[in-house]
Amino acid sequence: MIEVNVELKDRRYPIRIGSHILAESSSYAPLKCGDKVMIVSNPTVAKHYLTTVSDSLNRLGCKVSSVLIPDGEQYKTLDSLNLIFTALLQANHGRDTTIIALGGGVVGDVAGFAAASYQRGVRLLQIPTTLLSQVDSSVGGKTGVNHALGKNMIGAFYQPCAVIIDSASLDTLPKREVFAGLAEVIKYGAILDLAFFDWLEQHIDDLVSLQPQQLQYCIQRCCQLKADVVARDETEQGDRALLNLGHTFGHAIETHLGYGSWLHGEAVAVGMLMAADLSHLLGNLSRQDVFRLEKLLARANLPTVSPDGMSADDYLPLMMRDKKVLAGKLRLVLLQRLGQAYVTTNSDSELVRQAINHCSQFD
Amino acid sequence: MIEVNVELKDRRYPIRIGSHILAESSSYAPLKCGDKVMIVSNPTVAKHYLTTVSDSLNRLGCKVSSVLIPDGEQYKTLDSLNLIFTALLQANHGRDTTIIALGGGVVGDVAGFAAASYQRGVRLLQIPTTLLSQVDSSVGGKTGVNHALGKNMIGAFYQPCAVIIDSASLDTLPKREVFAGLAEVIKYGAILDLAFFDWLEQHIDDLVSLQPQQLQYCIQRCCQLKADVVARDETEQGDRALLNLGHTFGHAIETHLGYGSWLHGEAVAVGMLMAADLSHLLGNLSRQDVFRLEKLLARANLPTVSPDGMSADDYLPLMMRDKKVLAGKLRLVLLQRLGQAYVTTNSDSELVRQAINHCSQFD
Ligand SMILES: NC(=O)c1ccc[n+]([C@@H]2O[C@H](COP(=O)([O-])OP(=O)(O)OC[C@H]3O[C@@H](n4cnc5c(N)ncnc54)[C@H](O)[C@@H]3O)[C@@H](O)[C@H]2O)c1
Ligand SMILES: NC(=O)c1ccc[n+]([C@@H]2O[C@H](COP(=O)([O-])OP(=O)(O)OC[C@H]3O[C@@H](n4cnc5c(N)ncnc54)[C@H](O)[C@@H]3O)[C@@H](O)[C@H]2O)c1
Ligand SMILES: [Zn+2]
Ligand SMILES: [Zn+2]
Repeated sequence: MIEVNVELKDRRYPIRIGSHILAESSSYAPLKCGDKVMIVSNPTVAKHYLTTVSDSLNRLGCKVSSVLIPDGEQYKTLDSLNLIFTALLQANHGRDTTIIALGGGVVGDVAGFAAASYQRGVRLLQIPTTLLSQVDSSVGGKTGVNHALGKNMIGAFYQPCAVIIDSASLDTLPKREVFAGLAEVIKYGAILDLAFFDWLEQHIDDLVSLQPQQLQYCIQRCCQLKADVVARDETEQGDRALLNLGHTFGHAIETHLGYGSWLHGEAVAVGMLMAADLSHLLGNLSRQDVFRLEKLLARANLPTVSPDGMSADDYLPLMMRDKKVLAGKLRLVLLQRLGQAYVTTNSDSELVRQAINHCSQFD
Repeated sequence: MIEVNVELKDRRYPIRIGSHILAESSSYAPLKCGDKVMIVSNPTVAKHYLTTVSDSLNRLGCKVSSVLIPDGEQYKTLDSLNLIFTALLQANHGRDTTIIALGGGVVGDVAGFAAASYQRGVRLLQIPTTLLSQVDSSVGGKTGVNHALGKNMIGAFYQPCAVIIDSASLDTLPKREVFAGLAEVIKYGAILDLAFFDWLEQHIDDLVSLQPQQLQYCIQRCCQLKADVVARDETEQGDRALLNLGHTFGHAIETHLGYGSWLHGEAVAVGMLMAADLSHLLGNLSRQDVFRLEKLLARANLPTVSPDGMSADDYLPLMMRDKKVLAGKLRLVLLQRLGQAYVTTNSDSELVRQAINHCSQFD
């Protein structure tokens, strides 16, 4: 078991990474005998892991309850949140309870916000079970739900007391979800760490086939990179925005197609290529480095061209509605070079169109 | 205009108190020209004050939207919260918006929680319009909504950027609500400030008849006392619990009668007497001081005996369900003497019964 720490002074917390660690009671510190816990999961994940987690906690001497919310992004709502509150109140959970999020990013975000707001805040423990949630959403304290009029519009910054990552839980994850998670993995290399990008080029096939050793190293490296960014900028006033490479383009794709068609990571993959292409047009990234990124994404079985029939005209208005638009100015993350990103608010919209077109089928 | 400050380091904020100050644009700092604001109110309060507030803000150059939630404690819900989010999204409010809570404690608590959670936190300004909200709920950052299974079970600690208290807004408030607010005023004297208690004994009639000068002094003193407690203990780990004098008994009354029958302040009035009586039984408060408290409450037109037909047997189980029960131990606020309170977790339940009985009709 490896440990990475998120250094937030009095709210410092560990991320524990290992294979089959959900079956070991010792993984669950600071939980201890006598603690009351509420596991929040969904039917898909519960089927595979709820018994394992409950058993470990029971052996530790915890009093365990659980509640399932329906599976799917469309259930990341205030209604699901309320389901959790009802379960907590029915089982008489007080301020001293701990909420455990067992699942992907959806469960993590909803359960995290429940922990932030139940009785104005109870302890939270994250057990992410998708690659995306292991390398991204479970670390850093962003929690929340969607509103009919916008994604992630309601929420809180709320840090867990620990994150437990069992890389073996990815064995049951649909392959397409694994690939989508690899998009975020590649993102870390591209924005922050050239050496890690090099490593990914050498080991991407091992990751695609879920080799335990490589997988654990990869998760550890991503968590460390995210932990460092979060420690520097908890509430996204600055540096944390770099993590949004490809996301403004990607959100346009997700919105245009309607949620559920392309996965988030798939949209981000194409979005990163657009950002890379734009960076090249601006004279930063070399043509060759754009190509390296494209090749790595393709080897991770990710799309590298815009969805059929979606044109630059479709992108721009949707991109302007992004949360990261400040005072009407499009704010984009671009690449100085591989391993170094920056934020810009003055991007020539003609160049943005060109970059989009370069990554489109007809190009 | 008087100013009291809540000293929370980098989140320090002013409470401005005066008569007819809602009509003056200068009252609304830090709001300034160009700011986008969303006023949250209810139809009852909006009828009296929405135009005044909107006009002042328009003169300042703000872009003003408003949304009304239904009037009443039964609408302090996630649904009302969602109404506010919908209005914010429909009017395209971003992270740089300010939510203004214009109303009593219900509006303040719901709008406050909306500000805490909209896009993970936007600026909040409180304009309390009931005596209770002016001396209590608008200061200190507790926000939230009720759940069908429990009051105030969902929420956040979230501080406003300013509180604006127009004592003249109490002119339209139903008298019974004024009296209920006086229960909390008397509470401050009893737990924290004997000199203020003396002052209240001299001026209670002026307060009952809403004399502007005395009213403003009274609000100022209460805000100062609450601000001091909050600065010492923002998240109720210690001292802040003293503010709950009478509340555990009071909640039992509210729950037994069903919400809407007795007002919160009325239940707290009787609850404070029970706590005072128990303090006397434990050898702390003198018989005469219990009597001073009883007399002051009666002069404020507040009830001083338990509701008809409610017995000690009704109280105890309901009191045990209070949020302040820690690990099965009843936690009560009692009086050492007038002006000094303390928290105890070992109260003999026989004495608790006696105190309840002493404050019951048949006694
Ligand atoms: N909080 C943050 O910082 C942050 C960051 C990125 C994304 N997110 C959010 O995360 C969400 C996406 O997360 P996601 O990609 O994990 O999606 P997800 O939670 O919907 O999980 C994807 C699917 O995999 C299933 N699943 C999860 N673990 C499994 C396992 N081990 N075996 C089999 N099936 C499993 C889920 O039930 C679901 O059907 C979005 O709502 C996004 O907004 C949040
Ligand atoms: N956040 C805190 O720290 C805190 C502290 C104490 C109480 N509270 C909460 O406050 C709520 C009670 O607040 P409240 O007593 O102000 O009740 P309230 O908000 O329901 O107001 C009482 C009534 O007066 C009306 N009203 C308000 N201002 C008026 C005015 N100026 N003129 C005419 N009518 C007016 C309201 O519409 C309502 O009908 C409860 O939900 C309680 O939980 C919160
Ligand atoms: Zn992402
Ligand atoms: Zn009260």
